[in-house]
Amino acid sequence: MFTLYHHPFCPTSRFVRVALAEYEARFELVVEQTWAGREAFLRLNPAGEVPVAIENDGPALCGATVIMEYLEDTRGYAAGKHRMMPDNPNARAEVRRLCEWFLLKFRDEVSGPFVSERIFKLEMPAGAGGGAPDSASLRTARANMRHHLRYLGYLVSERDWIAGDQISFADLAAATALSAVDYLGEVPWHEDGAARAWYARMKSRPSFRPLLAESVRGVRAATHYANLDF
Amino acid sequence: MFTLYHHPFCPTSRFVRVALAEYEARFELVVEQTWAGREAFLRLNPAGEVPVAIENDGPALCGATVIMEYLEDTRGYAAGKHRMMPDNPNARAEVRRLCEWFLLKFRDEVSGPFVSERIFKLEMPAGAGGGAPDSASLRTARANMRHHLRYLGYLVSERDWIAGDQISFADLAAATALSAVDYLGEVPWHEDGAARAWYARMKSRPSFRPLLAESVRGVRAATHYANLDF
Repeated sequence: MFTLYHHPFCPTSRFVRVALAEYEARFELVVEQTWAGREAFLRLNPAGEVPVAIENDGPALCGATVIMEYLEDTRGYAAGKHRMMPDNPNARAEVRRLCEWFLLKFRDEVSGPFVSERIFKLEMPAGAGGGAPDSASLRTARANMRHHLRYLGYLVSERDWIAGDQISFADLAAATALSAVDYLGEVPWHEDGAARAWYARMKSRPSFRPLLAESVRGVRAATHYANLDF
Repeated sequence: MFTLYHHPFCPTSRFVRVALAEYEARFELVVEQTWAGREAFLRLNPAGEVPVAIENDGPALCGATVIMEYLEDTRGYAAGKHRMMPDNPNARAEVRRLCEWFLLKFRDEVSGPFVSERIFKLEMPAGAGGGAPDSASLRTARANMRHHLRYLGYLVSERDWIAGDQISFADLAAATALSAVDYLGEVPWHEDGAARAWYARMKSRPSFRPLLAESVRGVRAATHYANLDF
């Protein structure tokens, strides 16, 4: 049994929830508001960030990539056809490149700014950075979103899945990152049919269902957010 | 044989050079000035960043973490006692956490700003961002440096090596990142004896020697930079 410290709209925490579900690992969730700087949490992860996972009485596993590799190390072989990491070293490198792309680059340029400005700032006290969203930051994120959507569309029209001919952690990373942005109605799906069709496949996976049931007080979900056939 | 696209003062490229050397992998170096946006390079890595490694005629391996995991996947078992990744999944998670710390967090907060402001800006044309260093950015990096040095000192006084009782990729990540900052004389070694003693051990490894021979036109190395007994 894992304990997962997360925030329901943190994109990289969403990735870990779906990855754990795909690997059929049982877990319970603890919401952590990282901006509060809770001391017991900083002892788990000196970087002060979610996601952090703990298996049974084990040590803290800090960060989405670390948890992903731990899942692969401990359950990859046993997962059989549900495995999210290929065997071939070159194929593994491509999965990891695209995980980094969506867990780090996309977060820095798109999902992080959207979620911080439009969701976290509602929950933060003013002294910790709460308040109205910064419109310049949102504008930049919107422009970046279109570039990333085009790149995603290119990948899934060249290949069956993002990193190759099998579903992988890279698909989970991209879809979960997009889901947080999609809640806010900030993904211009009409601009890319291939990306949209791939996302419809992803969001109908059972592992995805709990994400689609999340909501934020004060921010209504985009009408198509939980609609599998959008 | 690997081809490694790098910059001699890019901290994460330095990590890959040392990792390749520790695993006794042969490689040749190609300097890439990423700010030029060379099209053939963007086809290798759409993120436009170094390091990128190619083994023989294989695909591009993009980014320090991806290359590290590839080395481990393809040579880990054969490396025997020179292996830089432990077997135990919890120990692997700790190595990966600290690699991320030094390859990403330390780069964002310390080594990236120092190297960009004081080295890359000398090489960049004005239109690509070249020019005088930004002193506010250097001041912030200096303040961050002290926090990171203290954390490093704490780690290596609790343990034999950064991530545990064996040398690992985490030591290579930390030492190579520090080496680029140390060239500029920006590591206040007198503030932490434990960190300094650990770094003296690291810089006397044969894999480190080529880094200590690098220099930048127009920026003199700190007097102790290549001194193994500083």
